[in-house]
Amino acid sequence: MTSEVTPEVTPIASPILDRVAATIESRKGADPSTSYVAKLFSKGDDAILKKIGEEATETVMAAKDARVSGDGSKVLYEVADLWFHSLVLLAQFDLSPQQVLDELARREGVSGIDEKAARKDA
Amino acid sequence: MTSEVTPEVTPIASPILDRVAATIESRKGADPSTSYVAKLFSKGDDAILKKIGEEATETVMAAKDARVSGDGSKVLYEVADLWFHSLVLLAQFDLSPQQVLDELARREGVSGIDEKAARKDA
Amino acid sequence: MTSEVTPEVTPIASPILDRVAATIESRKGADPSTSYVAKLFSKGDDAILKKIGEEATETVMAAKDARVSGDGSKVLYEVADLWFHSLVLLAQFDLSPQQVLDELARREGVSGIDEKAARKDA
Amino acid sequence: MTSEVTPEVTPIASPILDRVAATIESRKGADPSTSYVAKLFSKGDDAILKKIGEEATETVMAAKDARVSGDGSKVLYEVADLWFHSLVLLAQFDLSPQQVLDELARREGVSGIDEKAARKDA
Repeated sequence: MTSEVTPEVTPIASPILDRVAATIESRKGADPSTSYVAKLFSKGDDAILKKIGEEATETVMAAKDARVSGDGSKVLYEVADLWFHSLVLLAQFDLSPQQVLDELARREGVSGIDEKAARKDA
Repeated sequence: MTSEVTPEVTPIASPILDRVAATIESRKGADPSTSYVAKLFSKGDDAILKKIGEEATETVMAAKDARVSGDGSKVLYEVADLWFHSLVLLAQFDLSPQQVLDELARREGVSGIDEKAARKDA
Repeated sequence: MTSEVTPEVTPIASPILDRVAATIESRKGADPSTSYVAKLFSKGDDAILKKIGEEATETVMAAKDARVSGDGSKVLYEVADLWFHSLVLLAQFDLSPQQVLDELARREGVSGIDEKAARKDA
Repeated sequence: MTSEVTPEVTPIASPILDRVAATIESRKGADPSTSYVAKLFSKGDDAILKKIGEEATETVMAAKDARVSGDGSKVLYEVADLWFHSLVLLAQFDLSPQQVLDELARREGVSGIDEKAARKDA
Protein backbone atom coordinates (compact mmCIF):
# COMPACT_ATOMS: atom_id res chain seq x y z
CA MET A 1 0.00 0.00 0.00
CA THR A 2 2.97 2.33 0.46
CA SER A 3 5.87 1.99 -1.95
CA GLU A 4 4.07 0.97 -5.15
CA VAL A 5 4.16 4.36 -6.87
CA THR A 6 5.92 3.42 -10.10
CA PRO A 7 8.31 5.91 -11.73
CA GLU A 8 6.18 5.76 -14.93
CA VAL A 9 3.30 7.66 -13.30
CA THR A 10 5.41 10.41 -11.75
CA PRO A 11 3.75 13.77 -12.44
CA ILE A 12 7.10 15.37 -13.34
CA ALA A 13 7.51 13.82 -16.76
CA SER A 14 10.31 16.06 -17.98
CA PRO A 15 12.39 18.35 -15.75
CA ILE A 16 14.00 20.04 -18.77
CA LEU A 17 10.69 20.79 -20.57
CA ASP A 18 9.19 22.01 -17.30
CA ARG A 19 12.18 24.28 -16.65
CA VAL A 20 12.22 25.74 -20.17
CA ALA A 21 8.43 26.24 -19.95
CA ALA A 22 8.86 28.04 -16.60
CA THR A 23 11.52 30.34 -18.11
CA ILE A 24 9.21 31.07 -21.07
CA GLU A 25 6.27 31.72 -18.71
CA SER A 26 8.39 34.23 -16.75
CA ARG A 27 8.85 36.31 -19.94
CA LYS A 28 5.10 37.01 -20.28
CA GLY A 29 4.49 40.72 -19.86
CA ALA A 30 8.22 41.44 -19.52
CA ASP A 31 9.86 44.40 -21.29
CA PRO A 32 10.14 43.26 -24.96
CA SER A 33 13.70 44.61 -25.15
CA THR A 34 14.95 42.26 -22.40
CA SER A 35 14.59 38.94 -24.25
CA TYR A 36 13.67 37.23 -27.51
CA VAL A 37 10.68 35.45 -25.91
CA ALA A 38 9.38 38.64 -24.24
CA LYS A 39 9.48 40.28 -27.68
CA LEU A 40 7.55 37.35 -29.26
CA PHE A 41 4.86 37.55 -26.54
CA SER A 42 4.55 41.32 -27.04
CA LYS A 43 3.88 40.76 -30.76
CA GLY A 44 1.14 38.21 -30.09
CA ASP A 45 -0.38 35.08 -31.70
CA ASP A 46 0.57 35.67 -35.34
CA ALA A 47 4.26 36.26 -34.60
CA ILE A 48 4.41 33.00 -32.63
CA LEU A 49 2.46 31.04 -35.29
CA LYS A 50 4.71 32.45 -38.03
CA LYS A 51 7.67 30.97 -36.13
CA ILE A 52 5.95 27.55 -35.98
CA GLY A 53 5.62 27.64 -39.78
CA GLU A 54 9.20 28.85 -40.23
CA GLU A 55 10.75 26.25 -37.94
CA ALA A 56 8.76 23.46 -39.64
CA THR A 57 10.10 24.61 -43.03
CA GLU A 58 13.65 24.78 -41.64
CA THR A 59 13.27 21.26 -40.18
CA VAL A 60 12.26 19.98 -43.63
CA MET A 61 15.27 21.70 -45.26
CA ALA A 62 17.66 20.42 -42.55
CA ALA A 63 16.45 16.83 -43.05
CA LYS A 64 16.95 17.12 -46.81
CA ASP A 65 20.50 18.46 -46.22
CA ALA A 66 21.23 15.78 -43.61
CA ARG A 67 20.35 13.00 -46.06
CA VAL A 68 22.94 14.38 -48.49
CA SER A 69 25.67 15.28 -45.96
CA GLY A 70 25.18 12.35 -43.59
CA ASP A 71 25.28 14.79 -40.65
CA GLY A 72 22.03 14.72 -38.63
CA SER A 73 23.00 17.46 -36.17
CA LYS A 74 21.15 20.18 -38.08
CA VAL A 75 17.94 18.11 -37.80
CA LEU A 76 18.47 18.07 -34.04
CA TYR A 77 18.88 21.87 -33.85
CA GLU A 78 15.81 22.51 -35.98
CA VAL A 79 13.60 20.08 -34.02
CA ALA A 80 14.83 21.84 -30.85
CA ASP A 81 13.80 25.19 -32.43
CA LEU A 82 10.41 23.72 -33.39
CA TRP A 83 9.79 22.36 -29.89
CA PHE A 84 11.00 25.59 -28.26
CA HIS A 85 8.53 27.67 -30.26
CA SER A 86 5.82 25.05 -29.54
CA LEU A 87 6.49 25.74 -25.84
CA VAL A 88 6.03 29.47 -26.47
CA LEU A 89 2.74 28.73 -28.27
CA LEU A 90 1.56 26.50 -25.40
CA ALA A 91 2.35 29.28 -22.89
CA GLN A 92 0.48 31.79 -25.08
CA PHE A 93 -2.64 29.59 -24.70
CA ASP A 94 -1.98 28.80 -21.00
CA LEU A 95 -1.16 25.17 -21.80
CA SER A 96 1.78 23.15 -20.44
CA PRO A 97 4.21 20.66 -21.99
CA GLN A 98 2.95 18.17 -19.38
CA GLN A 99 -0.48 18.28 -21.03
CA VAL A 100 1.12 17.46 -24.41
CA LEU A 101 3.03 14.56 -22.85
CA ASP A 102 -0.19 13.35 -21.16
CA GLU A 103 -1.92 13.44 -24.55
CA LEU A 104 0.95 11.42 -26.10
CA ALA A 105 0.72 8.92 -23.21
CA ARG A 106 -3.06 8.66 -23.64
CA ARG A 107 -2.66 7.93 -27.35
CA GLU A 108 -0.04 5.30 -26.64
CA GLY A 109 -2.81 3.38 -24.89
CA VAL A 110 -5.25 4.05 -27.72
CA SER A 111 -2.56 3.17 -30.24
CA GLY A 112 -2.09 -0.26 -28.60
CA ILE A 113 -5.72 -0.95 -29.46
CA ASP A 114 -5.29 0.54 -32.95
CA GLU A 115 -2.34 -1.72 -33.55
CA LYS A 116 -4.43 -4.82 -32.77
CA ALA A 117 -7.21 -3.54 -35.05
CA ALA A 118 -4.67 -2.94 -37.83
CA ARG A 119 -3.32 -6.46 -37.41
CA LYS A 120 -6.83 -7.92 -37.73
CA ASP A 121 -7.38 -5.85 -40.90
CA ALA A 122 -4.13 -7.02 -42.44
CA MET B 1 27.85 16.90 0.99
CA THR B 2 28.21 13.51 -0.70
CA SER B 3 24.99 12.22 -2.23
CA GLU B 4 23.84 15.47 -3.85
CA VAL B 5 23.12 14.13 -7.32
CA THR B 6 20.51 16.74 -8.21
CA PRO B 7 17.31 15.77 -10.02
CA GLU B 8 18.17 18.30 -12.75
CA VAL B 9 21.01 16.18 -14.11
CA THR B 10 19.11 12.88 -14.24
CA PRO B 11 19.75 11.23 -17.59
CA ILE B 12 16.08 10.11 -17.92
CA ALA B 13 14.56 13.47 -18.76
CA SER B 14 11.15 12.25 -19.86
CA PRO B 15 9.76 8.74 -19.34
CA ILE B 16 6.81 9.42 -21.67
CA LEU B 17 8.91 10.75 -24.57
CA ASP B 18 11.37 7.87 -24.10
CA ARG B 19 8.54 5.31 -24.12
CA VAL B 20 6.83 6.79 -27.20
CA ALA B 21 10.24 6.96 -28.94
CA ALA B 22 10.87 3.30 -28.08
CA THR B 23 7.48 2.30 -29.52
CA ILE B 24 8.23 4.28 -32.69
CA GLU B 25 11.71 2.71 -32.95
CA SER B 26 10.15 -0.78 -32.71
CA ARG B 27 8.10 -0.05 -35.86
CA LYS B 28 11.20 0.38 -38.06
CA GLY B 29 11.26 -2.36 -40.67
CA ALA B 30 7.91 -3.76 -39.48
CA ASP B 31 5.20 -4.84 -41.95
CA PRO B 32 3.69 -1.51 -43.19
CA SER B 33 0.16 -2.95 -42.84
CA THR B 34 0.55 -3.47 -39.07
CA SER B 35 0.74 0.16 -37.96
CA TYR B 36 0.57 3.79 -39.04
CA VAL B 37 4.20 4.42 -38.05
CA ALA B 38 5.48 1.30 -39.83
CA LYS B 39 3.73 2.57 -42.98
CA LEU B 40 5.35 6.04 -42.60
CA PHE B 41 8.82 4.46 -42.22
CA SER B 42 8.21 2.29 -45.30
CA LYS B 43 7.44 5.41 -47.37
CA GLY B 44 10.64 7.18 -46.25
CA ASP B 45 11.91 10.72 -45.61
CA ASP B 46 9.50 12.71 -47.78
CA ALA B 47 6.36 11.13 -46.28
CA ILE B 48 7.59 11.97 -42.77
CA LEU B 49 8.62 15.52 -43.73
CA LYS B 50 5.28 16.09 -45.44
CA LYS B 51 3.63 15.24 -42.09
CA ILE B 52 5.83 17.81 -40.28
CA GLY B 53 4.60 20.48 -42.71
CA GLU B 54 0.98 19.33 -42.40
CA GLU B 55 0.97 19.22 -38.60
CA ALA B 56 2.58 22.68 -38.41
CA THR B 57 -0.18 24.05 -40.68
CA GLU B 58 -2.86 22.33 -38.57
CA THR B 59 -1.31 23.78 -35.40
CA VAL B 60 -1.56 27.28 -36.91
CA MET B 61 -5.22 26.70 -37.87
CA ALA B 62 -6.06 25.25 -34.45
CA ALA B 63 -4.53 28.28 -32.69
CA LYS B 64 -6.53 30.65 -34.90
CA ASP B 65 -9.71 28.68 -34.09
CA ALA B 66 -8.87 28.55 -30.37
CA ARG B 67 -8.55 32.34 -30.20
CA VAL B 68 -12.11 32.65 -31.56
CA SER B 69 -13.72 29.77 -29.64
CA GLY B 70 -11.81 30.19 -26.38
CA ASP B 71 -11.15 26.43 -26.32
CA GLY B 72 -7.42 25.62 -26.40
CA SER B 73 -7.79 21.83 -26.47
CA LYS B 74 -7.36 21.63 -30.27
CA VAL B 75 -4.01 23.44 -29.92
CA LEU B 76 -2.97 20.73 -27.47
CA TYR B 77 -3.94 17.91 -29.87
CA GLU B 78 -2.13 19.53 -32.80
CA VAL B 79 1.07 20.20 -30.82
CA ALA B 80 0.92 16.54 -29.71
CA ASP B 81 0.61 15.53 -33.40
CA LEU B 82 3.54 17.80 -34.28
CA TRP B 83 5.74 16.40 -31.51
CA PHE B 84 4.73 12.80 -32.35
CA HIS B 85 5.79 13.22 -35.98
CA SER B 86 8.96 15.01 -34.79
CA LEU B 87 9.73 11.82 -32.84
CA VAL B 88 9.22 9.75 -36.01
CA LEU B 89 11.60 12.12 -37.87
CA LEU B 90 14.20 11.85 -35.09
CA ALA B 91 14.00 8.03 -35.26
CA GLN B 92 14.36 8.17 -39.05
CA PHE B 93 17.70 9.98 -38.52
CA ASP B 94 18.74 7.79 -35.54
CA LEU B 95 18.31 10.69 -33.13
CA SER B 96 16.58 10.61 -29.73
CA PRO B 97 14.21 12.99 -27.92
CA GLN B 98 16.83 13.09 -25.14
CA GLN B 99 19.24 14.77 -27.55
CA VAL B 100 16.60 17.43 -28.33
CA LEU B 101 16.02 18.01 -24.60
CA ASP B 102 19.79 18.22 -24.05
CA GLU B 103 19.99 20.85 -26.79
CA LEU B 104 17.15 22.81 -25.13
CA ALA B 105 18.94 22.56 -21.76
CA ARG B 106 22.23 23.69 -23.35
CA ARG B 107 20.51 26.75 -24.85
CA GLU B 108 18.90 27.59 -21.54
CA GLY B 109 22.42 28.17 -20.24
CA VAL B 110 23.38 30.14 -23.37
CA SER B 111 20.10 32.02 -23.15
CA GLY B 112 20.92 33.12 -19.60
CA ILE B 113 23.98 34.85 -21.03
CA ASP B 114 21.94 36.22 -23.96
CA GLU B 115 19.44 37.67 -21.52
CA LYS B 116 22.14 39.59 -19.70
CA ALA B 117 23.53 40.86 -23.02
CA ALA B 118 20.05 41.95 -24.08
CA ARG B 119 19.58 43.79 -20.80
CA LYS B 120 22.88 45.66 -21.32
CA ASP B 121 21.74 46.63 -24.83
CA ALA B 122 18.38 47.89 -23.60
CA MET C 1 -9.18 55.45 -82.68
CA THR C 2 -6.03 53.77 -83.88
CA SER C 3 -2.89 53.22 -81.85
CA GLU C 4 -3.75 54.18 -78.27
CA VAL C 5 -4.72 50.79 -76.79
CA THR C 6 -1.47 49.64 -75.22
CA PRO C 7 -0.99 45.88 -74.67
CA GLU C 8 0.11 46.58 -71.07
CA VAL C 9 -3.35 47.71 -69.96
CA THR C 10 -5.34 44.81 -71.45
CA PRO C 11 -7.87 43.64 -68.85
CA ILE C 12 -7.33 39.96 -69.77
CA ALA C 13 -3.95 39.48 -68.15
CA SER C 14 -3.81 35.70 -68.37
CA PRO C 15 -6.17 33.56 -70.47
CA ILE C 16 -4.88 30.35 -68.84
CA LEU C 17 -5.33 31.53 -65.23
CA ASP C 18 -8.77 32.93 -66.11
CA ARG C 19 -9.80 29.64 -67.73
CA VAL C 20 -8.54 27.48 -64.83
CA ALA C 21 -10.25 29.86 -62.37
CA ALA C 22 -13.52 29.56 -64.35
CA THR C 23 -13.31 25.75 -64.26
CA ILE C 24 -12.66 25.87 -60.48
CA GLU C 25 -15.57 28.32 -59.99
CA SER C 26 -17.89 25.92 -61.84
CA ARG C 27 -17.15 23.20 -59.27
CA LYS C 28 -18.63 25.23 -56.38
CA GLY C 29 -21.67 23.44 -55.03
CA ALA C 30 -21.19 20.52 -57.43
CA ASP C 31 -21.60 16.91 -56.29
CA PRO C 32 -18.35 16.18 -54.32
CA SER C 33 -18.05 12.79 -56.04
CA THR C 34 -17.74 14.35 -59.51
CA SER C 35 -14.38 16.07 -59.11
CA TYR C 36 -11.40 16.69 -56.85
CA VAL C 37 -12.13 20.43 -56.61
CA ALA C 38 -15.84 19.88 -55.85
CA LYS C 39 -14.74 17.60 -52.99
CA LEU C 40 -12.32 20.26 -51.66
CA PHE C 41 -15.07 22.93 -51.73
CA SER C 42 -17.47 20.57 -49.91
CA LYS C 43 -14.91 20.13 -47.10
CA GLY C 44 -14.44 23.90 -46.67
CA ASP C 45 -11.73 26.37 -45.64
CA ASP C 46 -9.51 24.10 -43.53
CA ALA C 47 -9.20 21.40 -46.22
CA ILE C 48 -8.13 24.04 -48.77
CA LEU C 49 -5.70 25.73 -46.34
CA LYS C 50 -4.20 22.36 -45.43
CA LYS C 51 -3.43 21.87 -49.13
CA ILE C 52 -1.69 25.30 -49.27
CA GLY C 53 0.58 24.17 -46.42
CA GLU C 54 1.17 20.76 -48.00
CA GLU C 55 2.03 22.12 -51.45
CA ALA C 56 4.41 24.70 -49.95
CA THR C 57 6.22 21.89 -48.09
CA GLU C 58 6.36 19.78 -51.26
CA THR C 59 7.75 22.77 -53.20
CA VAL C 60 10.53 23.10 -50.61
CA MET C 61 11.34 19.37 -50.85
CA ALA C 62 11.26 19.45 -54.68
CA ALA C 63 13.69 22.39 -54.77
CA LYS C 64 16.06 20.58 -52.39
CA ASP C 65 15.89 17.47 -54.62
CA ALA C 66 16.33 19.55 -57.80
CA ARG C 67 19.55 21.10 -56.48
CA VAL C 68 21.00 17.60 -56.01
CA SER C 69 19.61 15.97 -59.19
CA GLY C 70 19.98 18.99 -61.48
CA ASP C 71 16.43 18.37 -62.77
CA GLY C 72 14.14 21.34 -62.09
CA SER C 73 10.96 19.79 -63.51
CA LYS C 74 9.68 18.69 -60.08
CA VAL C 75 9.91 22.33 -58.90
CA LEU C 76 7.72 23.27 -61.86
CA TYR C 77 5.08 20.65 -60.98
CA GLU C 78 5.00 21.66 -57.31
CA VAL C 79 4.72 25.38 -58.06
CA ALA C 80 1.86 24.50 -60.44
CA ASP C 81 0.21 22.54 -57.57
CA LEU C 82 0.75 25.50 -55.22
CA TRP C 83 -0.75 27.99 -57.69
CA PHE C 84 -3.65 25.65 -58.50
CA HIS C 85 -4.61 25.37 -54.84
CA SER C 86 -4.12 29.15 -54.47
CA LEU C 87 -6.76 29.53 -57.21
CA VAL C 88 -9.10 27.25 -55.25
CA LEU C 89 -8.50 29.40 -52.13
CA LEU C 90 -9.16 32.61 -54.09
CA ALA C 91 -12.45 31.14 -55.40
CA GLN C 92 -13.40 30.11 -51.86
CA PHE C 93 -13.12 33.79 -50.86
CA ASP C 94 -14.75 35.10 -54.10
CA LEU C 95 -11.45 36.56 -55.28
CA SER C 96 -9.95 36.27 -58.79
CA PRO C 97 -6.42 35.63 -60.11
CA GLN C 98 -6.78 38.96 -61.95
CA GLN C 99 -6.92 40.72 -58.56
CA VAL C 100 -3.66 38.99 -57.54
CA LEU C 101 -2.01 40.04 -60.82
CA ASP C 102 -3.29 43.61 -60.32
CA GLU C 103 -1.74 43.60 -56.83
CA LEU C 104 1.58 42.36 -58.28
CA ALA C 105 1.41 45.08 -60.97
CA ARG C 106 0.63 47.71 -58.33
CA ARG C 107 3.65 46.65 -56.28
CA GLU C 108 5.87 46.74 -59.35
CA GLY C 109 5.18 50.47 -59.43
CA VAL C 110 5.75 50.78 -55.68
CA SER C 111 8.83 48.61 -55.98
CA GLY C 112 10.28 50.96 -58.60
CA ILE C 113 10.16 53.69 -55.97
CA ASP C 114 11.51 51.30 -53.32
CA GLU C 115 14.40 50.44 -55.58
CA LYS C 116 15.37 54.09 -55.91
CA ALA C 117 15.09 54.54 -52.14
CA ALA C 118 17.29 51.49 -51.63
CA ARG C 119 19.85 52.87 -54.05
CA LYS C 120 19.96 56.16 -52.11
CA ASP C 121 20.47 54.23 -48.88
CA ALA C 122 23.29 52.14 -50.39
CA MET D 1 -1.42 30.89 -93.24
CA THR D 2 -1.97 34.44 -92.01
CA SER D 3 -4.83 35.22 -89.62
CA GLU D 4 -5.37 31.86 -87.89
CA VAL D 5 -3.41 32.58 -84.70
CA THR D 6 -6.16 32.26 -82.08
CA PRO D 7 -5.92 34.38 -78.90
CA GLU D 8 -6.03 31.18 -76.78
CA VAL D 9 -2.67 29.93 -78.08
CA THR D 10 -0.84 33.24 -77.79
CA PRO D 11 2.60 32.58 -76.28
CA ILE D 12 2.31 35.65 -74.03
CA ALA D 13 -0.11 34.20 -71.49
CA SER D 14 0.33 36.89 -68.86
CA PRO D 15 1.99 40.27 -69.50
CA ILE D 16 2.05 41.06 -65.76
CA LEU D 17 3.66 37.77 -64.69
CA ASP D 18 6.16 38.06 -67.55
CA ARG D 19 7.04 41.62 -66.56
CA VAL D 20 7.43 40.82 -62.86
CA ALA D 21 9.52 37.76 -63.78
CA ALA D 22 11.73 39.95 -66.03
CA THR D 23 12.24 42.44 -63.18
CA ILE D 24 13.14 39.58 -60.83
CA GLU D 25 15.52 38.08 -63.41
CA SER D 26 17.29 41.45 -63.73
CA ARG D 27 18.12 41.35 -59.98
CA LYS D 28 20.25 38.17 -60.33
CA GLY D 29 23.84 39.00 -59.50
CA ALA D 30 22.96 42.61 -58.63
CA ASP D 31 24.41 44.34 -55.57
CA PRO D 32 22.42 42.87 -52.61
CA SER D 33 22.05 46.34 -51.08
CA THR D 34 20.13 47.68 -54.11
CA SER D 35 16.96 45.61 -53.76
CA TYR D 36 15.05 43.05 -51.68
CA VAL D 37 15.16 40.47 -54.50
CA ALA D 38 18.89 40.96 -55.13
CA LYS D 39 19.44 40.30 -51.43
CA LEU D 40 17.32 37.12 -51.56
CA PHE D 41 19.30 35.82 -54.58
CA SER D 42 22.59 36.59 -52.80
CA LYS D 43 21.49 34.45 -49.84
CA GLY D 44 20.58 31.48 -52.06
CA ASP D 45 18.12 28.57 -52.14
CA ASP D 46 17.35 28.23 -48.42
CA ALA D 47 16.48 31.93 -47.95
CA ILE D 48 14.04 31.74 -50.89
CA LEU D 49 12.51 28.43 -49.71
CA LYS D 50 12.12 29.83 -46.19
CA LYS D 51 10.04 32.65 -47.71
CA ILE D 52 7.81 30.10 -49.52
CA GLY D 53 7.11 28.44 -46.16
CA GLU D 54 6.55 31.79 -44.44
CA GLU D 55 4.17 33.15 -47.08
CA ALA D 56 2.17 29.89 -47.07
CA THR D 57 1.77 30.19 -43.29
CA GLU D 58 0.76 33.86 -43.60
CA THR D 59 -1.79 32.93 -46.29
CA VAL D 60 -3.33 30.37 -43.90
CA MET D 61 -3.49 32.96 -41.09
CA ALA D 62 -4.95 35.62 -43.41
CA ALA D 63 -7.70 33.23 -44.57
CA LYS D 64 -8.58 32.38 -40.96
CA ASP D 65 -8.76 36.12 -40.14
CA ALA D 66 -10.79 36.86 -43.29
CA ARG D 67 -13.43 34.30 -42.33
CA VAL D 68 -13.92 36.11 -39.01
CA SER D 69 -13.66 39.71 -40.28
CA GLY D 70 -15.44 39.20 -43.61
CA ASP D 71 -12.65 41.17 -45.33
CA GLY D 72 -10.84 39.04 -47.95
CA SER D 73 -8.25 41.69 -48.93
CA LYS D 74 -5.55 40.23 -46.65
CA VAL D 75 -5.93 36.87 -48.44
CA LEU D 76 -5.29 38.70 -51.71
CA TYR D 77 -2.10 40.35 -50.38
CA GLU D 78 -0.76 37.08 -48.98
CA VAL D 79 -1.47 35.10 -52.18
CA ALA D 80 0.33 37.91 -54.08
CA ASP D 81 3.30 37.51 -51.67
CA LEU D 82 3.22 33.72 -52.18
CA TRP D 83 3.13 34.04 -55.97
CA PHE D 84 5.85 36.72 -55.94
CA HIS D 85 8.23 34.48 -53.98
CA SER D 86 7.26 31.55 -56.25
CA LEU D 87 8.48 33.71 -59.16
CA VAL D 88 11.78 34.29 -57.34
CA LEU D 89 12.09 30.51 -56.79
CA LEU D 90 11.33 29.82 -60.48
CA ALA D 91 14.04 32.34 -61.51
CA GLN D 92 16.49 30.70 -59.08
CA PHE D 93 15.97 27.41 -60.99
CA ASP D 94 15.91 29.10 -64.44
CA LEU D 95 12.21 28.36 -64.86
CA SER D 96 9.53 30.78 -66.12
CA PRO D 97 5.94 31.54 -65.04
CA GLN D 98 4.94 30.62 -68.61
CA GLN D 99 6.09 27.05 -67.93
CA VAL D 100 3.88 26.93 -64.80
CA LEU D 101 0.90 28.25 -66.81
CA ASP D 102 1.61 25.68 -69.56
CA GLU D 103 1.60 22.94 -66.91
CA LEU D 104 -1.74 24.23 -65.55
CA ALA D 105 -3.15 24.31 -69.13
CA ARG D 106 -1.89 20.76 -69.76
CA ARG D 107 -3.60 19.52 -66.60
CA GLU D 108 -6.82 21.25 -67.56
CA GLY D 109 -6.93 18.89 -70.56
CA VAL D 110 -6.05 15.91 -68.37
CA SER D 111 -8.56 17.06 -65.79
CA GLY D 112 -11.33 17.13 -68.44
CA ILE D 113 -10.72 13.42 -68.93
CA ASP D 114 -10.49 12.85 -65.16
CA GLU D 115 -13.80 14.59 -64.68
CA LYS D 116 -15.53 12.23 -67.16
CA ALA D 117 -13.95 9.23 -65.43
CA ALA D 118 -15.11 10.54 -62.05
CA ARG D 119 -18.64 10.97 -63.40
CA LYS D 120 -18.67 7.36 -64.63
CA ASP D 121 -17.52 6.22 -61.18
CA ALA D 122 -20.20 8.26 -59.42
